[in-house]
Amino acid sequence: MVILTLNCGSSSAKYQVYDWRNKDILAVGVVERIGLEYSTIEHKATGKEEYNEKFSSPTHKEAIELIIKMLLDEKHGVIKSLSEIGAVGHRVLHGGELFKKSALVTDEVVEQLKKVIPLGPLHMPANIMGIEAARKAMPNVPQAIVLDTAWHQTMPAEAFMYAVPYEWYTNNNVRRYGFHGTSHLYCAKRAAVLLGKKNEDTNVIICHIGNGASVCAVKNGVCVDTSMGLTPLEGLVMGSRSGDLDPAIIPYMMQNTGMSAMEMDTTLNKKSGLIGICGMSDRRDVAAAAAEGNERAQLAIDLECHRLKKYIAGYAALLGGRVDAIVFTAGVGEMGGHIRKGSCVGLEVIGAKLDQYKNEICHCRNGEFEISTDDSQVKIFVIPTDEELVITEDAYALMNGTYDVHTNFHYTFESKDYVNKGRARDLVKNLKKKPELKSIIALPR
Amino acid sequence: MVILTLNCGSSSAKYQVYDWRNKDILAVGVVERIGLEYSTIEHKATGKEEYNEKFSSPTHKEAIELIIKMLLDEKHGVIKSLSEIGAVGHRVLHGGELFKKSALVTDEVVEQLKKVIPLGPLHMPANIMGIEAARKAMPNVPQAIVLDTAWHQTMPAEAFMYAVPYEWYTNNNVRRYGFHGTSHLYCAKRAAVLLGKKNEDTNVIICHIGNGASVCAVKNGVCVDTSMGLTPLEGLVMGSRSGDLDPAIIPYMMQNTGMSAMEMDTTLNKKSGLIGICGMSDRRDVAAAAAEGNERAQLAIDLECHRLKKYIAGYAALLGGRVDAIVFTAGVGEMGGHIRKGSCVGLEVIGAKLDQYKNEICHCRNGEFEISTDDSQVKIFVIPTDEELVITEDAYALMNGTYDVHTNFHYTFESKDYVNKGRARDLVKNLKKKPELKSIIALPR
Repeated sequence: MVILTLNCGSSSAKYQVYDWRNKDILAVGVVERIGLEYSTIEHKATGKEEYNEKFSSPTHKEAIELIIKMLLDEKHGVIKSLSEIGAVGHRVLHGGELFKKSALVTDEVVEQLKKVIPLGPLHMPANIMGIEAARKAMPNVPQAIVLDTAWHQTMPAEAFMYAVPYEWYTNNNVRRYGFHGTSHLYCAKRAAVLLGKKNEDTNVIICHIGNGASVCAVKNGVCVDTSMGLTPLEGLVMGSRSGDLDPAIIPYMMQNTGMSAMEMDTTLNKKSGLIGICGMSDRRDVAAAAAEGNERAQLAIDLECHRLKKYIAGYAALLGGRVDAIVFTAGVGEMGGHIRKGSCVGLEVIGAKLDQYKNEICHCRNGEFEISTDDSQVKIFVIPTDEELVITEDAYALMNGTYDVHTNFHYTFESKDYVNKGRARDLVKNLKKKPELKSIIALPR
Repeated sequence: MVILTLNCGSSSAKYQVYDWRNKDILAVGVVERIGLEYSTIEHKATGKEEYNEKFSSPTHKEAIELIIKMLLDEKHGVIKSLSEIGAVGHRVLHGGELFKKSALVTDEVVEQLKKVIPLGPLHMPANIMGIEAARKAMPNVPQAIVLDTAWHQTMPAEAFMYAVPYEWYTNNNVRRYGFHGTSHLYCAKRAAVLLGKKNEDTNVIICHIGNGASVCAVKNGVCVDTSMGLTPLEGLVMGSRSGDLDPAIIPYMMQNTGMSAMEMDTTLNKKSGLIGICGMSDRRDVAAAAAEGNERAQLAIDLECHRLKKYIAGYAALLGGRVDAIVFTAGVGEMGGHIRKGSCVGLEVIGAKLDQYKNEICHCRNGEFEISTDDSQVKIFVIPTDEELVITEDAYALMNGTYDVHTNFHYTFESKDYVNKGRARDLVKNLKKKPELKSIIALPR
């Protein structure tokens, strides 16, 4: 039996096929340019050649039909019949306050998701279209939704409320929701394994730094605060998003430029962050430019690290005086040693010391590494996140009737013996090229 | 010789007369309702009865004329002739990037201040009117401006830049300026005295918590970050200001309610913060309501403390691994033991331990107190701020030709022997009523 995961963006659909018995990834792929004059698919089955095709996909329906066709394809496929798909797990951006955990899709659930559209007007319609298309294409397969916000629903009110008119909360649902929930869940539980602690005794701060970026404070195994808010705009300096700013800047600049509210929203989401400062959003480009003396690129790096450092130390104060570990994850968290380095300067004040050598050699997306000094009170880990695995396991458990909210549920990756086969294969390759990596591999305690 | 300080708000003018030789306050007062159908003055000369009057003051000009008349008044006055006024010090909200320290008023300086009006459209015109009216009324007296933003001009770019389109900075002056500068300056220098350290070796975090509130990180005696930004809206939860929020909330709520940019600005400045959450902005009312079981009032307190705690710990990471002291100042900082208590929970992680008993008895605006435990690595001080004294000393030194930027200048209150006479008198009264206060008085080392 396989579990299919689907992640539908406004114009894309990413997917993964997971072999439940062998705990291995069979195929991954992405459809892009949905709704444009032509669409593309990139499909890669493990051990087979990559396949690319242009085709027509006016809506997510055609995209999902093509994905199914690819999975069944004689040459590029990985299953013989649709009946091999045990469940489909859909990544959903926003569950508002309606979803505190993953759920099986029913007509009622779809209606509830529609109520949340105003909170995610760009992503939610695509998420819902993907769900509806998959239900039509696979009417007999249980479908599950796994929400980016659900993990954060344990935040206390003092963390999730804004100091704005109270009726904005009661009438318009304005509060902090937080995002990247499945990633923070995965990393929090993996950190507990690496620390040799029970989830309910584990205090960690997780920095998910990709193009989008968020920090999460995890106390006794549950989220108590996070940097993203009503939307994914708040918090850290991101690739193209501003993160935090003086709210008064918005009316000030609207008055100065005549921008509308929606133009402002677009500017802060698409033309700000690193792009706003230095014109580039890819951290590799920014780092290369800074190394060549580009002052704006250096400023962008300094801003990003300055903001992240403050969040990490600020969250330390929420954890009741004990931080077990800081975790870096996602593209930049796993590969951007310079961002880790810059943001850890000064964290000695909370007992976290980065080992500069270990941090420098830690440049690999497929292993779990420990990059703090031996005498650091707070461990610093790099953990490659695996949101698809969380979605896969939730979907399987929902289908199987064994699912529960994460505090009452045991994921396979919480076992000391857990090995992600796909990643392990890649790590072996990496170790051949960079044997020094072996010295920093983090192992379960 | 006396120094007159003037603090002109949009519809008010506060003043203080300081006897330079005896280092004592001779009179304080405030004109309110400037520009309304009638105005009021409250005038109090030390050792004399308070005087109140209604009068007509269509502009700041009439207000300043009345203030001068009061100062010369036979019964309520404190000077015999205008020639006794050595200098006038004006508190000014915003100096943009044009003023990094206080300055003598010239025509050119007034022109420069006019350029800064867009950054403080409500306050700057009043500040400038006050300066022009005082120049007319006292043409032979040197006038000085002391800016709320100047202290913060030492911030590095990674602290003062926002991750927004870079041209917002170059074309529209969008950056972090910070406010409450004279208060932070005063408290940083007093903390150094109480610590027995040189300014340039002192790392402190100052929490100025009044109706408006800001935190400042001071490294080696200079400001390296602060919570207020382009305007005083950013940062902490305040009496009526929201402080930080997801910027996306603004376009979201503008779309949902049809509010204009300026209505949004007003809502976030006047109807948010504690008022937004629980309908009250005075911390005493909020505390009383919370004690009676008002859940929204309790939420307001929890929100305020949660935010402040994160800022303090976040700033600790900016100070290079060593925090010498945390300082609480201004109305709530000095009197609000419950806010100090709530915001210090968890700060053990940066080495700061609040002594609960000392914190509880510390309820007095006229002394300097130490409220950390004896074994706390980081001292926690309560220091009554004295912005007027900074303005007075800057004005005197500018008149006298001895002024320089604060890193090269020695204020009288940096002396171990410094005593604020007015405050000392009050403290003696307080100690009679609450002798236990004596045990927590902080003394210069």
